[in-house]
Amino acid sequence: MKVEVISTGTELLLGEIINTNFPYLAEELNRRGFDVLYETTVGDNPQRLKDVLEHAASRADLIITSGGLGPTRGDLTKELVAEYCGLDSYLDMEVWGRINDFFTTRKMCMVQNNEKQAMIPYGARILKNAIGTAPGLVIEQQGKLFILLPGPPVELKDMCEKQLFPFLSKKFADLGLIKSHTLKLRGVGESAVAESLDELIMHQTNPTLAIYARNGDILIRITAKAPSETEAEKLIFDKRQAVENLVGKYVYGYDDDTLPACLGRELIKQNKTVAFAESCTGGLTTSMMTDVPGSSAYIKGSVVTYSNESKHQLIGVKNSSLKKYGAVSREVACEMAEGVRQLMQTDFGVSITGIAGPGGGTRTKPVGLVFMAVADQDGVVWAEKHFNGGREQNKLRSALNAMGMVFDRLTGLNKNLEEK
Amino acid sequence: MKVEVISTGTELLLGEIINTNFPYLAEELNRRGFDVLYETTVGDNPQRLKDVLEHAASRADLIITSGGLGPTRGDLTKELVAEYCGLDSYLDMEVWGRINDFFTTRKMCMVQNNEKQAMIPYGARILKNAIGTAPGLVIEQQGKLFILLPGPPVELKDMCEKQLFPFLSKKFADLGLIKSHTLKLRGVGESAVAESLDELIMHQTNPTLAIYARNGDILIRITAKAPSETEAEKLIFDKRQAVENLVGKYVYGYDDDTLPACLGRELIKQNKTVAFAESCTGGLTTSMMTDVPGSSAYIKGSVVTYSNESKHQLIGVKNSSLKKYGAVSREVACEMAEGVRQLMQTDFGVSITGIAGPGGGTRTKPVGLVFMAVADQDGVVWAEKHFNGGREQNKLRSALNAMGMVFDRLTGLNKNLEEK
Repeated sequence: MKVEVISTGTELLLGEIINTNFPYLAEELNRRGFDVLYETTVGDNPQRLKDVLEHAASRADLIITSGGLGPTRGDLTKELVAEYCGLDSYLDMEVWGRINDFFTTRKMCMVQNNEKQAMIPYGARILKNAIGTAPGLVIEQQGKLFILLPGPPVELKDMCEKQLFPFLSKKFADLGLIKSHTLKLRGVGESAVAESLDELIMHQTNPTLAIYARNGDILIRITAKAPSETEAEKLIFDKRQAVENLVGKYVYGYDDDTLPACLGRELIKQNKTVAFAESCTGGLTTSMMTDVPGSSAYIKGSVVTYSNESKHQLIGVKNSSLKKYGAVSREVACEMAEGVRQLMQTDFGVSITGIAGPGGGTRTKPVGLVFMAVADQDGVVWAEKHFNGGREQNKLRSALNAMGMVFDRLTGLNKNLEEK
Repeated sequence: MKVEVISTGTELLLGEIINTNFPYLAEELNRRGFDVLYETTVGDNPQRLKDVLEHAASRADLIITSGGLGPTRGDLTKELVAEYCGLDSYLDMEVWGRINDFFTTRKMCMVQNNEKQAMIPYGARILKNAIGTAPGLVIEQQGKLFILLPGPPVELKDMCEKQLFPFLSKKFADLGLIKSHTLKLRGVGESAVAESLDELIMHQTNPTLAIYARNGDILIRITAKAPSETEAEKLIFDKRQAVENLVGKYVYGYDDDTLPACLGRELIKQNKTVAFAESCTGGLTTSMMTDVPGSSAYIKGSVVTYSNESKHQLIGVKNSSLKKYGAVSREVACEMAEGVRQLMQTDFGVSITGIAGPGGGTRTKPVGLVFMAVADQDGVVWAEKHFNGGREQNKLRSALNAMGMVFDRLTGLNKNLEEK
């Protein structure tokens, strides 16, 4: 069952709002076994919208529109679909009554235009709108199914959950479903993963594998299509085994897992605490760690030591080290990690010191150079990284890298690290 | 100049990620006088992508793709556009050199696949990628212009700003343009601003005014359409005067200004320094402050005091206060602010302590309750706020509010504050 979603609205084409309806529809429809193959965004222009509708009907079986059901002149979707399908419309008294109630209960005045929203093409199935005034519609014509949904996300979502999805599941009971599962990797590059999985990817049909890079993480998504949930899960399980045989050592989490959350779970499991001494990351690492609910179990506190004086005074970095090696150095990173561990009396002390940019770089210490260290009772491990994003990107990569080092230390991975 | 944007990537059709590239491109292109008329999303499928390219070329003059330039088998955009345009490709030694450098400086291993990214269709103009390995391309063919951009938003944005937009502005110098200018307000609500500007908004044609609420800020956008930059600026200047006559006292910045950047400028101007004692914000405030290049001029350091012990030990909050009033209280907020000012020897000490949620709330101290305080040589001012977002939203609102308090203190606005 091929699907095209048409998002209407000039505000989308002006970039004024971000389209969240489409990812919602796409995820929900894919899950129910529909193949969402195209999405088209078009403005409130009758000729262009008509062309887009025609083109969609030529390549998809199910055409879902969002937007253009309002009371204004610019709302054209229903009228154009009716015209395309050659259907006349009537004033639906039930819909009209609901619109009247909507205004009455809110003590608002109705305007002439609202009558337009109660005009229904003959033969259309009505999807009630529990939140706003525009009803949704299902129109079947020459083997194609047109589904018209309102634009406001809360209305669209409510209508989908309560009316559209139950209707579709009943009508297309034999479609099967698609399930996907994501592995999250760190400490490895996209192309190295692609090479490791090349054999698996080359001969794939179902499930399929896809590799993405996102914020320093590598994501591997396994997608299976099957008649039932159990069968899809079995397919995914087998493929996941094959993937983990090849790159399992880089996997730190799955699906909605984040590195701060995985690290937090591991800290709780091993009953350990952590404190950060942040220089170039300016508090970002601790902020990300504390985005995880319940993180107070393992975060006692952190320091942002942005100046040399604060590095010395708060966490005891030697003035001689600052002078001899500079604040951005392996030596200072190691002293910071041990210093914050002592100050906060935690199991791990973690430091990050580097040049986030855009200024402050030199020939020997360029922008993007970052030293990180993790101290525990056994000593200090450190790492040197060269990032080349903008300031905020460098901060983010540094923060994730530092968390990764603690994660590796806890789980015994110790990738990309050298012992001091 | 009609534009169609093609967003590629199966992850978009699965609803796994939200397309932020398109609204960015749409906004920037509209601003430069281009008519963005269509956007199509299609997956990593050669036949469908080819059909979409053909259809786009039939209805637009400028076709911009995002995604599909990576090193994997699933990355097809460049190859299909080259095929559509009938162009052979060559290995570009400069691009190839840059990719090599990218891996060398990161001490990473290159794989066979990366060579694919250095294959360039004959006659294409190369848009350098300062962040990743995939170069962008501009291909002109039979009066149509194909522009190929990488999918990762940071890479796409950087390439657009530094290379694509300057190129387009030069090539299409006579399009006329749309210019907009944004005023940023704090300490006032959206409806109050709307009411103040009612007269101005009612009779507007060019320029137009629009009011938005975003993350606790109110934004007023003035948009003018004119043949030249100078004429647009004149229109905007006059309207801005009229707006500032009505609501100027709430304006803290313009356009890309952020509260951390405006606060930073004010601190530099008055030669003051600041340190934060963060509890519920977990370092977010200092991280946002240090997102501003050059912030080391006024940020010496901060502490994240997530536990009661760290509040006591690091910044001298009295154990009796913690016991009597609790960590989330006016009294503790004030002691934290003064404590961190003493510890860091700064002009301002700023504290934030609250309940970010989702857990930890009680009947008298519900989730979203946050106390903030600002200490300087004249004493301490404090504020109590009740936010009702999720954990991350509450952290963000708290951080912005605390910065706003320092800003008000520096500029003498002192809105919404009570003296202790």
